Amino acid sequence: MASSADPDELVASTDAHHPANLIPSLCSKFWSLGWVTGTGGGCSIRQGDLVYIAPSGVQKELMKNTDIYVLSLSAQLPSTHQRTYLRSPPDLKPSQCTPLFLAAFTRRRAGCCIHTHSQWAVLVTLLLEAQGSHVFEINNIEQIKAFPRTASSETDGTPSNLGFHDTLRIPVIENTPHEEDLTSFLEDAMDHHPHTCAVLVRRHGVYVWGDDVRKAKTQAESLDYLFQLAVEMKKLGIPWVSQIARVGPDRR
Amino acid sequence: MASSADPDELVASTDAHHPANLIPSLCSKFWSLGWVTGTGGGCSIRQGDLVYIAPSGVQKELMKNTDIYVLSLSAQLPSTHQRTYLRSPPDLKPSQCTPLFLAAFTRRRAGCCIHTHSQWAVLVTLLLEAQGSHVFEINNIEQIKAFPRTASSETDGTPSNLGFHDTLRIPVIENTPHEEDLTSFLEDAMDHHPHTCAVLVRRHGVYVWGDDVRKAKTQAESLDYLFQLAVEMKKLGIPWVSQIARVGPDRR
Amino acid sequence: MASSADPDELVASTDAHHPANLIPSLCSKFWSLGWVTGTGGGCSIRQGDLVYIAPSGVQKELMKNTDIYVLSLSAQLPSTHQRTYLRSPPDLKPSQCTPLFLAAFTRRRAGCCIHTHSQWAVLVTLLLEAQGSHVFEINNIEQIKAFPRTASSETDGTPSNLGFHDTLRIPVIENTPHEEDLTSFLEDAMDHHPHTCAVLVRRHGVYVWGDDVRKAKTQAESLDYLFQLAVEMKKLGIPWVSQIARVGPDRR
Amino acid sequence: MASSADPDELVASTDAHHPANLIPSLCSKFWSLGWVTGTGGGCSIRQGDLVYIAPSGVQKELMKNTDIYVLSLSAQLPSTHQRTYLRSPPDLKPSQCTPLFLAAFTRRRAGCCIHTHSQWAVLVTLLLEAQGSHVFEINNIEQIKAFPRTASSETDGTPSNLGFHDTLRIPVIENTPHEEDLTSFLEDAMDHHPHTCAVLVRRHGVYVWGDDVRKAKTQAESLDYLFQLAVEMKKLGIPWVSQIARVGPDRR
Repeated sequence: MASSADPDELVASTDAHHPANLIPSLCSKFWSLGWVTGTGGGCSIRQGDLVYIAPSGVQKELMKNTDIYVLSLSAQLPSTHQRTYLRSPPDLKPSQCTPLFLAAFTRRRAGCCIHTHSQWAVLVTLLLEAQGSHVFEINNIEQIKAFPRTASSETDGTPSNLGFHDTLRIPVIENTPHEEDLTSFLEDAMDHHPHTCAVLVRRHGVYVWGDDVRKAKTQAESLDYLFQLAVEMKKLGIPWVSQIARVGPDRR
Repeated sequence: MASSADPDELVASTDAHHPANLIPSLCSKFWSLGWVTGTGGGCSIRQGDLVYIAPSGVQKELMKNTDIYVLSLSAQLPSTHQRTYLRSPPDLKPSQCTPLFLAAFTRRRAGCCIHTHSQWAVLVTLLLEAQGSHVFEINNIEQIKAFPRTASSETDGTPSNLGFHDTLRIPVIENTPHEEDLTSFLEDAMDHHPHTCAVLVRRHGVYVWGDDVRKAKTQAESLDYLFQLAVEMKKLGIPWVSQIARVGPDRR
Repeated sequence: MASSADPDELVASTDAHHPANLIPSLCSKFWSLGWVTGTGGGCSIRQGDLVYIAPSGVQKELMKNTDIYVLSLSAQLPSTHQRTYLRSPPDLKPSQCTPLFLAAFTRRRAGCCIHTHSQWAVLVTLLLEAQGSHVFEINNIEQIKAFPRTASSETDGTPSNLGFHDTLRIPVIENTPHEEDLTSFLEDAMDHHPHTCAVLVRRHGVYVWGDDVRKAKTQAESLDYLFQLAVEMKKLGIPWVSQIARVGPDRR
Repeated sequence: MASSADPDELVASTDAHHPANLIPSLCSKFWSLGWVTGTGGGCSIRQGDLVYIAPSGVQKELMKNTDIYVLSLSAQLPSTHQRTYLRSPPDLKPSQCTPLFLAAFTRRRAGCCIHTHSQWAVLVTLLLEAQGSHVFEINNIEQIKAFPRTASSETDGTPSNLGFHDTLRIPVIENTPHEEDLTSFLEDAMDHHPHTCAVLVRRHGVYVWGDDVRKAKTQAESLDYLFQLAVEMKKLGIPWVSQIARVGPDRR
């Protein structure tokens, strides 16, 4: 545990790739994409046992490394098994997304988790609600290849990704009045969809994770691309799932 | 009153958080968001008794601190009770939004007021006009949590925000040929909706305020997000107000 | 005439407001707005007798001051009354928009003329074509106030702008295979609509001018705002021209 | 062959126009345009015999010159006629687009080839699929003039471009599970449409090439403009191909 040292050392680095510097630059980019409008959404990075988390209620495009919370995955209070923060910025509040980020880190060994309020994600959940559906499904779109077919832990470092003709499935959970109450529903969705790298939250947004920052961000971008495409397809009367003729050799 | 001192001192500061520096940086960001296109819209910040206001007719993404008007809330001319400017930039005209900004400062003790011509706001007022409605209502969307349930003055600094299942209500007033004539209608809407932090102006835009710059900007962003979402929901045939089953404990 | 001097002096200045520096910074902004995609569109500034023009076929977001053409309004070849360039950049071609920019400078004494290929402008001309219309009309939208009611030359420097309830009218001319052939049609439209500050070109884009750069840019932005709004209104079934009840005193 | 020299010299230059510097700056721009979201899409530049290629799976807005692959067009392995890389960055994978980029360089003597996953391109292929069509066609739009009527090699350096009334035709090929398997279909489309500068890939994106970076980028931007316009026209019920009356002299 780093509790004996100066906790501010945990977020002080001149390395642009240090999590305390990466989270602000990622959040600024996400703000430009409309993912974290009005202080909504967030981002967390895990490095070994340490978890770095953006705070609640800050303007995401203006965040600084000194705004970042840090906690230890392994260190829990003996009585309640609650985790405590190794570093808490003064005058800020911890993110209500924290238990959801932790679910991705503990259940999926993720290295980064991104939560967006993207309107495309929300609109997809609204369109699915009108159909009584709890799963977003789309196939036969090239960008689907960005997603893993299996969890990376199953494949000894050579993960297999979805193919063009495969169907990407992202579960949808219902929103709860308090964000931390989503945790058990998110964990259930992870259990029932063991290969998914994302969970949609109805009328709220999406949680996306990955082994590292690059993978989590690539999957978050690719999902948002598919959500936007799906909304436009709906406007134009084009179905999300189709049976199309296969072209060329399929060497999968 | 600061009239004996050099009025240019009122806008000269190397602090990026000084209102005369903040207004130009905010307006540049608002221009990129399409909120102040063609010199429309504006922004004002109150710091104690001093009110800082963007001028009329300037390119909002190019504004400088020396373009900012300053007036005193308390100092009024004895005869007409008109407020006078402590600082007026040469060659510019004061904003016609001034009396509307002042209404937010005097009636709601706001610290910042933002006026946008966002197309999403205008489209929402047009859709409501077709229904003969004077209130924008939306519920069961996560971003609604960004808005206060009660005025901050009622809650001793621990403001309560709307919950996910609550209905956000933003009143709509009709536009007038001259912007300053909106003032009495804006004040009436504030009186009839004592907890609202915004008023839509039909076929014109929206006024949003908050206790400080961060809150006003967060609420302006969150409102614009909801207006855009509402327009897209309308295109897709999804109602803005719904009755959905509640999930999980509601501890409000 | 400046022909005896070094023509490169005409575009060499450290002043950001010099036309040869302004045109590249404006064109970069227009590129971000989608107005000059794929080297389409352009911009010209007149300062006294000198006219500065962006060249043909350059990437508009990468333009430099040394790319700018300069010609004199008054200097014409005796035989053909053709104007000659005081400065021509090597390896570039003059813009085919040149005679159209000159029409704004000579017939309207404009100080700046902007030509965009904005998709919103093109879509408005397509929607009007389906109705057999040659005029874009919209009223009862606040942004209409950005446009002059009368030419500035008629009002001795105190121009009157359109009011909220007035109808903005922008003529539409048909496109021609060669851009310079548009000139006589543009001039006719200027004659028939003596107060317009813009002419739409069917399936092509729009020409907008103003007394100076600020006015031309403000009007171009405001027009593009109205074109986009009009397209969205069409999608939502809201008419562009309406009869609405007047609110408050109309002191015009 | 440069194999005897330090391969890192091939991508080390302080010149912003060196291909190894241009590709990262272009890809950053393309990321902002939504063309290379989630590491999709790519870009390659040919300079004489040397071909510079962006790698697979990198965040396109963060690419560096040291990420660039280099190969020689002429140097092939005697046995398999496979080309080998003169420079391969450590820890990266070559782009699966490589054989498709090479097709543009060898069959069309292109100097630059751009591959985007633009949603507008994908939506156009989906709309055409519903019609059973394998060619995107549009006419009577000014931006069509950005495209060549004939290959530049046929016209001795004075290429003729399409006119306003001409019909632009871009072939559509079906997507394959593996990107390299697209190569023969792309080459067939090049053979059957000898003057095209682009090929759409169904449910995937578009390949665009040009004699140099400026032309390839101008054509890629102009195509994306037309794809977006076409989708909006579809939403508004306006046909892509029309018979309209000709105005003015057609001097083609």
